[in-house]
Amino acid sequence: MSLETSGAGELPPITAAAAVPTPTAPTGAPHGTRLDPWLDSYADRAHAMRASEIRALFAVANRPEVVSLAGGMPYLEGLPLDVLGEMSQRVVTTRGTTALQYGSAQGDETLREQIVEVMRLEGIEAHPDDIIVTTGSQQALDLVTRIFVNPGDVVVAEAPSYVGALGVFRAAEADVVHVPLDEHGLIPAALEETLAGLAREGRRVKLLYTVPNYHNPAGVTLSAERRPQILEIARRYGVLVLEDNPYGLLGFSGDPIPALRSLDADGVVYLGTFSKTFAPGYRVGWAVAPHAVREKLVLASESAILCPSNASQLAVSTYLATCDWRSQIKAFCELYRERRDAMVGALAEHLPDASWTVPDGGFYTWVKLPDGLDAKAMLPRAVTARVAYVPGTAFYANGEGSDHMRLSFCFPTPDRIREGVRRLAGVVAGESELVSLFGVSGPRSRDDLQQPGPDVA
Amino acid sequence: MSLETSGAGELPPITAAAAVPTPTAPTGAPHGTRLDPWLDSYADRAHAMRASEIRALFAVANRPEVVSLAGGMPYLEGLPLDVLGEMSQRVVTTRGTTALQYGSAQGDETLREQIVEVMRLEGIEAHPDDIIVTTGSQQALDLVTRIFVNPGDVVVAEAPSYVGALGVFRAAEADVVHVPLDEHGLIPAALEETLAGLAREGRRVKLLYTVPNYHNPAGVTLSAERRPQILEIARRYGVLVLEDNPYGLLGFSGDPIPALRSLDADGVVYLGTFSKTFAPGYRVGWAVAPHAVREKLVLASESAILCPSNASQLAVSTYLATCDWRSQIKAFCELYRERRDAMVGALAEHLPDASWTVPDGGFYTWVKLPDGLDAKAMLPRAVTARVAYVPGTAFYANGEGSDHMRLSFCFPTPDRIREGVRRLAGVVAGESELVSLFGVSGPRSRDDLQQPGPDVA
Repeated sequence: MSLETSGAGELPPITAAAAVPTPTAPTGAPHGTRLDPWLDSYADRAHAMRASEIRALFAVANRPEVVSLAGGMPYLEGLPLDVLGEMSQRVVTTRGTTALQYGSAQGDETLREQIVEVMRLEGIEAHPDDIIVTTGSQQALDLVTRIFVNPGDVVVAEAPSYVGALGVFRAAEADVVHVPLDEHGLIPAALEETLAGLAREGRRVKLLYTVPNYHNPAGVTLSAERRPQILEIARRYGVLVLEDNPYGLLGFSGDPIPALRSLDADGVVYLGTFSKTFAPGYRVGWAVAPHAVREKLVLASESAILCPSNASQLAVSTYLATCDWRSQIKAFCELYRERRDAMVGALAEHLPDASWTVPDGGFYTWVKLPDGLDAKAMLPRAVTARVAYVPGTAFYANGEGSDHMRLSFCFPTPDRIREGVRRLAGVVAGESELVSLFGVSGPRSRDDLQQPGPDVA
Repeated sequence: MSLETSGAGELPPITAAAAVPTPTAPTGAPHGTRLDPWLDSYADRAHAMRASEIRALFAVANRPEVVSLAGGMPYLEGLPLDVLGEMSQRVVTTRGTTALQYGSAQGDETLREQIVEVMRLEGIEAHPDDIIVTTGSQQALDLVTRIFVNPGDVVVAEAPSYVGALGVFRAAEADVVHVPLDEHGLIPAALEETLAGLAREGRRVKLLYTVPNYHNPAGVTLSAERRPQILEIARRYGVLVLEDNPYGLLGFSGDPIPALRSLDADGVVYLGTFSKTFAPGYRVGWAVAPHAVREKLVLASESAILCPSNASQLAVSTYLATCDWRSQIKAFCELYRERRDAMVGALAEHLPDASWTVPDGGFYTWVKLPDGLDAKAMLPRAVTARVAYVPGTAFYANGEGSDHMRLSFCFPTPDRIREGVRRLAGVVAGESELVSLFGVSGPRSRDDLQQPGPDVA
């Protein structure tokens, strides 16, 4: 069996080279892949920024014949687009001179009041003045990092951790130290041990970055029991907790666990977003922070973008005011639960030698490959077989994770998920054969995913 | 005559204290103006971020009874809101699963093709692949600065310079060195002298930041003769030119002067925006950069926001495709020319002892006060008299500019502009009396405007 066409059927072959765009330059507009004349001028933080080979593969993975289990895109077909269209019209027609104008750097006040209501579902009591609206919660993550992290400062994060956060920390020239998690989330004893070790070394730890609910990529949730323990340890070591919670309302059973922020208003900066519970295209997220921190976040955001989009904010605000957003979230939960079931069912059927987490919400499962396989090295063959995933190395700052992959069940239909896992099983079988023959699954490299990219958010 | 009520008529008195919001904390949600427990944790770059007293005054200046000659908000009432409303509806109804979804980090391809057409009006030949779409051109300014500027690097900028750019450079811990301009814009000989001096000192100059057209705040335009000279000098010293051009299409007479970018594709990063020619509420701007720089900008933007808003981009793209945007820009030019005329006419009538630039486009005139007056010290009295402006010190990184103020004519109607200048003249008369009696116009301080803020963009 040829590995290159494993599972590909009669479709034409795809190579990674097809992903590299080769634009045709118009007359008089020189550009392209010449040497960079400004190479010596970049700031230190820019040298870590480079496109990885994985990104090129993802460009291929977006082709319709590929089942992408890589992306973090929500499934939007269930949204009432006609209603949302009329809503958009009303916003522009009746409030156009506000919607189309500059707004407050902190964000629309009505929307901030509505965000208070949304957060109450996870036990958070906040005041609208505690909130800053941002261009997706990614911007909030970037702003918090910029106001706290000097080059060389330590950021403690789960192992594994959200690739987009690692990109932000890298851009800030932070030193990321990972702390292990298990099926109940971040392990308090491991956090204590790590912080104690860093304190002994005299290292300055600025942030504990955590995704407590339906973790990206690990799929696990921090238990209610551990939450106060984590906060107590962070407080004792003077470390600000950065709670990133895009998926908290997307649970498949029971009520949400109270957010860390609901237990500690002074020690936590909380990040929220409408990208997963409504629509990412508006780019509306937010941060909740202690008063003085929130003030600095507003100043930092003014410097970065002047103000968030009024058009987007008014659209989201009108949606919250006029649509039954709670029912919409319930519908999303049903949809994603069904896809989670398709995913774990297909894994059990086709990949019995692997192991995986069974998430109780969110978008992702975290798969450990059979011994000896390297998810990064295997990716080109998987894409050739028309299935894509994100290799585990993307979620570590230190090159670990090659034996894991993140599989997303948010965007493809259940049938496509099953087909994707079936194709993946074919690739894994081929790789395993190679390993048993030669003892290694392919060339290893340390070219991790350098930047998050909207396709893997 | 009481200075405090000069020009105020029968309106109730306003004090700066009224501007400070005093939110009421809900039970169980502690916040407010307590000491900052995280004060020792901030990054170095955050310590320069603080709200200035001027910002508090601007909060008052937004009250309807105040004529604000401070803001850079475009006048949007002329936009066809009904048409734009229908357009928004169509975008969501027919292309909702794209408009509401994550998009490319570089920006929508169709929009980038349209931006190429827009820039052709100023002589720029570019390829869509040279462009990155950003959350307003402010984000592009921030991204360029982040990829090029290390703490301590020099950025050369006009004296005066856009307050929002100075905020970005400050956040990057850059050392801004001003170069004088005159009625024909940045002075080549002065640039040469400055760069030669910095080279002798061994300083690393990373960027020349310039607003060549209808300068903010100075109102002047870089002459066609000087443009190649400026580029030649920058090239010789290995300095990247950052051309910020929000106002280039808003000229009051004749054709636009070719952009710096049209003369040098490798040595210039060009920033554009739809905020002044269409609407700022979508937050759609862009940068055009040499290929390798553009690649880094995309990676930096992914880290900062993942991707720009698809909803906003599709709205702007649809506007450009379906509306007569060239006629709309012409209508804006007519509107702003009339307001410029009202402004300079009123200045001639009421403030004959001052001097000012007569801009041939854009939003601003730059006023030199009569000898001995301090625009910063005078501002509280001006706001009390129900007129607001931005003191000149906001546009310098070094505390200069106290004898100047920026007056905007973009947002208020001609009648309001005349009334504002009349009130301002009353304040100036009172201040002049004070100076002739005591030799100083009030307490000086070095509390410059720390951040741009959407209200003074």
